[in-house]
Formats: sequence, C-alpha cells, structure tokens
Amino acid sequence: MNKNRLEAFSDGVIAIIITIMVLEIKTPHDTSWMALREQLPVFFSYLLSFVFIGIYWGNHHHLISALSHVNAAIIWSNMNLLFWLSLIPFATGWMGENRFAQNTVILYAVLLLVCGLSFTILQICVERVTKNNPKLVLALSRVMQKSVFSVVCYSISIVLAYYNTLFSAIIFCIVAIRWLIPDKNIEKAITK
Amino acid sequence: MNKNRLEAFSDGVIAIIITIMVLEIKTPHDTSWMALREQLPVFFSYLLSFVFIGIYWGNHHHLISALSHVNAAIIWSNMNLLFWLSLIPFATGWMGENRFAQNTVILYAVLLLVCGLSFTILQICVERVTKNNPKLVLALSRVMQKSVFSVVCYSISIVLAYYNTLFSAIIFCIVAIRWLIPDKNIEKAITK
Amino acid sequence: MNKNRLEAFSDGVIAIIITIMVLEIKTPHDTSWMALREQLPVFFSYLLSFVFIGIYWGNHHHLISALSHVNAAIIWSNMNLLFWLSLIPFATGWMGENRFAQNTVILYAVLLLVCGLSFTILQICVERVTKNNPKLVLALSRVMQKSVFSVVCYSISIVLAYYNTLFSAIIFCIVAIRWLIPDKNIEKAITK
Amino acid sequence: MNKNRLEAFSDGVIAIIITIMVLEIKTPHDTSWMALREQLPVFFSYLLSFVFIGIYWGNHHHLISALSHVNAAIIWSNMNLLFWLSLIPFATGWMGENRFAQNTVILYAVLLLVCGLSFTILQICVERVTKNNPKLVLALSRVMQKSVFSVVCYSISIVLAYYNTLFSAIIFCIVAIRWLIPDKNIEKAITK
Repeated sequence: MNKNRLEAFSDGVIAIIITIMVLEIKTPHDTSWMALREQLPVFFSYLLSFVFIGIYWGNHHHLISALSHVNAAIIWSNMNLLFWLSLIPFATGWMGENRFAQNTVILYAVLLLVCGLSFTILQICVERVTKNNPKLVLALSRVMQKSVFSVVCYSISIVLAYYNTLFSAIIFCIVAIRWLIPDKNIEKAITK
Repeated sequence: MNKNRLEAFSDGVIAIIITIMVLEIKTPHDTSWMALREQLPVFFSYLLSFVFIGIYWGNHHHLISALSHVNAAIIWSNMNLLFWLSLIPFATGWMGENRFAQNTVILYAVLLLVCGLSFTILQICVERVTKNNPKLVLALSRVMQKSVFSVVCYSISIVLAYYNTLFSAIIFCIVAIRWLIPDKNIEKAITK
Repeated sequence: MNKNRLEAFSDGVIAIIITIMVLEIKTPHDTSWMALREQLPVFFSYLLSFVFIGIYWGNHHHLISALSHVNAAIIWSNMNLLFWLSLIPFATGWMGENRFAQNTVILYAVLLLVCGLSFTILQICVERVTKNNPKLVLALSRVMQKSVFSVVCYSISIVLAYYNTLFSAIIFCIVAIRWLIPDKNIEKAITK
Repeated sequence: MNKNRLEAFSDGVIAIIITIMVLEIKTPHDTSWMALREQLPVFFSYLLSFVFIGIYWGNHHHLISALSHVNAAIIWSNMNLLFWLSLIPFATGWMGENRFAQNTVILYAVLLLVCGLSFTILQICVERVTKNNPKLVLALSRVMQKSVFSVVCYSISIVLAYYNTLFSAIIFCIVAIRWLIPDKNIEKAITK
C-alpha cells in the first residue's frame, strides 16, 4: 500500500470538508447590511472550523510524511479521523445558525474532542510503524503533548458551556492559537 | 493511457462522494437534544455508507496498483463503478430520512448489489491485463471470494427487507466487518 | 508552467462537476416506489451527463498527455472548456426536473454544442504546440473528425427539439456511443 | 514540509470553490425562456468569479513553483488566502440573486480587495524564502505591480458603487483583462 494515495485521498476529503462548510452560509434574500450582519455568527463559526481543519491538515501532513509504509491499522484509523472531521460542517452549521446556543456549543466541543482522540489514535498507529529516528520521536512526542493539552481543554469547554458558552469559545481560540504557534522541534525533525 | 491519472480521478470522485453525503444531514432548526436525536437514523445511514465507500476506496486502490497498463475496457468499467457509487449519497439520504423504511432499505441493498457487481466487472477487466504474478493472482482470487460473498449477502438482505429491515441492516454490517478484517494474503501480495 | 498541475486542476474540477450533479436528484419525502419513479427523468438526465463528462475527461486526458509544454493560450482555452462543462449540472437539473421539456432540451443541446466547440479550440491550441509526431497528428485528426461529427449532431438536435425532444435525446445517445467505441488509432498513438 | 502537498491541497480547495459556485445558479421551476433569463445576473456574477478564481489559480501556481521550500509563514498565509477565496461563492451568490444591488457589489469589491491583499502577503512570504534568481525577482515584481494596480482598482470600485454599480462592474472587468493578458517576463522567468 502506497502512502501517496493515502495522502492524496485524505487531502481530497479535507479540502472538500473545509470548502463545503461555506455552503452553510446562506445568502440573505435582503440586500441590507442588517441582513448580512445576522449571518455574522455563521461566519465566525465557519472561521473557527476553517482554522481547526487547517490545523488538522497541517498535522496530518507531518504525521504521514513521517511514515515509511502503510498498513491496515493506519488506513482505518485515518478513515476514522476523516469520518469525524466530515461531521464538522454539520456541527458548525448548527452552532452558527443558532448563535452559539448551549447545546450546539456542547456538541461542537464533543466533536472536537472525538476528532482530537481520533488523531491521537492515528498517531499511535503511525508511531508503531516508525520508531527509528530520534528527532522524529521527539517531534511526535511534542505533537502528542499538544494533543493531550487540546483534549483536556475540550473537556473543560464542555463543562463551561453549561455556565456560559463564551468561555467555551475562548477555550477553542486558546487551543487554536496553541497549535498555530510553529514548533521549531517538529519543523527541524521533519526537514532534516 | 497513464494509470496515475485514472487513480487520481477515481480518488477525487470517491473523496467527493464520501464527503457530500454529509450535506444530507440537515441541521435541526431547534437546539434541543430531541431535535438532534431525530437525525440519528440519518447519522447511522451516513456512517454505514462512509464505511462501505471507504472499503471500495481501499479495494479500488489495491486493484489499480496491481495494474500494469490501462485500456478502454478498464476506463469504462471504472466509470461504471463510479457511476453507481455516486448514487449512494441519494440512496443513503432516502433511507436515513425515512428511518430505514422498507422500500428505502431495498433500494439501498439493490444499489450495493449493483456496486458489488460493477466492482467485479472492473476486477475481471484488470485480471485480463495482469496475469503473470502468482501472489497477485491469489490475492485477487481472495478479493473475488469476498465479492461473491457480498453479492450473495446483498441478495439475501433484499429478500429479508420484506420481513424486517433490521435483518437487512445486520447483514450490511456483517458484509462491512468481513471486508474490514485485513487479509494477510492481499497485503503480502501487494507489498512484495 | 508545468502540465501536471494543469492536469490535476482539470481532473479536480471535472471530478467535482460529475459528482455534484447527483445533488440534483432530490430524495423523495415519500417512501413509495411511485415517488421514486417520478425521479426517473432526473436519473436519466444524470446518466446522460455522467457519460458525456466521462467522455470529456477521457479525451482531455489524451489531449494533455500529448502536450509537451503549457502556454497562456492552453491555460485559458482549458479554463474556457471547464467553465462550460461546469454549467452542465445546471442544464441537466433543469432538463431532468422538467421531464425533458422542449426549452430545457434545447438549452442542453446548445450547452453540449458550446462544450464541443470549446474542446475543439483547446485541441487547436494543443496542436499548435505539438506537431512533430506523425502518429499523434493522425490520432488528433481522428478526434477532430469526431468533434465535427458531434457539433453537427448537436446542431441537428437543437432543430429537432422543436418537433420532438425524443429525437434530440436519441441523437445525444448516438453521439455518446460514437465516442464510447474505442479508437485503435488514438490508443496506438498514445501508448507508443 | 513538502511543497507538492501544499500545491495539491490548494488546487483541491480552489477547484472546489470554482465549481460549487454553480450550485448557486438555481434551476428555474418554469421551462420558459423568461424564467431562464431571470437567472442571467446570477450567470454573469458566476462568470466574473470563475475568471477571478481562474486568475488566482494561475498566479498561485506561478508563486508556488518559484518556491524552494515551505515554512509555517507560507502555510498560514496560503490558508489565509484560501479562506477569503472560499467566501467568493457566498458574495457571488448574494450579488447575482440581488441583480448587482449596491450593498452586494460593495461586499464583493471588499472581498476581492481582501483576497488581493492576502495574495500579496503570501507573495511577500514566498519572496523572503527565494531571493537568488534575478529573472524570478523581476517576474515577481511584475506580479506585485499588477497586485497593487488591482488593489487600487478595487478601492475605487467600492467608492464608485455608491454612485453606480455599473462603474464597479466595469472596473472588475478591467482588472480581469489586465491579468488575462499574458506577461512574457513571468513566463520566461518560470520556464527558464
């Protein structure tokens, strides 16, 4: 099994997921700025999901590039990740349309949690296959640290949503920023 | 004719089919958990189809990687398979929206049957072109066995749907699990 | 300018065009077979367009594989072809929903005509760049013959649609079959 | 980080953006030519956006092909560009459905402006990484000139939309034509 095709297929699915979300932003029938402003929560939920899926794409790329060969466990843990990612447009739409209502934020946080766990499962499967390179081991352990941090944050955001969904949204942003800061260790390990 | 482009095009179409199905899961206008729970049958039908299309993608990959060159018969039997696969989102949506009603399950089973037969036709076209490698012949014969098993199961599930659609759903799951269990013979034949 | 990316982009656009058409087949809210049968014209218009876009994909592949390098004329005549192809889902949906009503068939035939002309323009641009190989010149001249045949047929089908749209549909099928019959000259020229 | 995957992912997203716009052209339920003619503004807005996204695709290709390696700044400025491009179908739909009403044209112009600035940011990130080749420096400076010209034009078109949206539309066309004229310097720099 060739890893290029796994990469190409995953890229295709992620590219479609990230783009079809925009279909959730319905064009207002009215041409007033007010009508447009009512779409703002939908826009922000789209922006948030776009950033998260972009982060997943980047990390997925790093993970697969570290891979020497593909086995059945990797194919199916990858499929599992893609399945949960593919539900993000649904959760994003529900959250945006209902202006970050409590239940919708909880569902979104649960979905991010499941995606985070699915990514960790994929990473464990990849690590089993590639254990030789010490720099890579370091880089992957850093990604794992961030994943654990994210999973903890998502769990907290689920609890906080019962008090105020704004806190949950702030935690989502913190997680996103944590991933967006480039990690020198990973870049070094990958490039060399 | 270059097999890379056939692979890339098929990957693209399969990636789109697997992802646009999620557009069938309409966001409930209500934010109650009850409203979400009403989407559960749609979610399960999506999950089922995601797994089936994932299986087709994996097998399609194995089949094409076994291929040495592409002829007109392969292009058109591949197009035939993609056509029937592209109808899965429609059948999935109809089945999910109507909570696995009898007619919708029958249509779904018939479509899976036609997809199974289309895959077998593609496999026969591929086998005609590549006959030299004994390990590959063994691997392809194992895939064929599974295909025959699936086609028989789909036929049974069509009949059973007239009694209880739950039986049909169970048979769909049995077929999926049968394919998900990795086959050492195929992996060996492909990797070596 | 690298022809691989032109190919990859065109493949992506064609794969999306061929797949989003299936979104036009709305799931009936009713579970009766009658409700499904009412979608039959939509199904047939989808099948017809799937075959036509499949043919364009195959020919596009042959054309680009004959290409040595890419210039601005090729990029924009390719974009022109993709633009008209991208309108096929719209024309297909209009024709299918209205059960092959006169005006919808005329629009569909006009669109096929414009697509045919756009392909011919692309071919002329490709031929200007690659003139050396005699077998290729022969193969391209055969494709050109078929294109001229198609354009004439589409023009006739537009006129016939004023009498009976069934005649137009028959002509569409004749054109499709004419292209589906594999041409030994082209295959030889490409493979050698 | 490998630039091929960046290219493949961007191509995928751009191909999807350019194609899903066609879903905005709703099929009229009526089969009269009048009903079709009412879709003309939608068609023209689609045509305009198709040309603009096509131009972005071409320039994006040139930019990435000039790149020797990928860093975090390039990944995220590329993601930023893709985000704004992904909103074009929304702005196009709003403008087309409301027959180029004032507010919709202003939003469209603002979006084009933001896309232009995002492209410029990406170009600056790319230039930081690749500074050696003098021909390439010349080519990139020409692209930058055109980008500045475009950004100025978009700003003017926003102001003009308050008087007459027709003037804005004319300016959009001028910008498009300016980019469509092939630039010998860029082609030379890239091919050699």
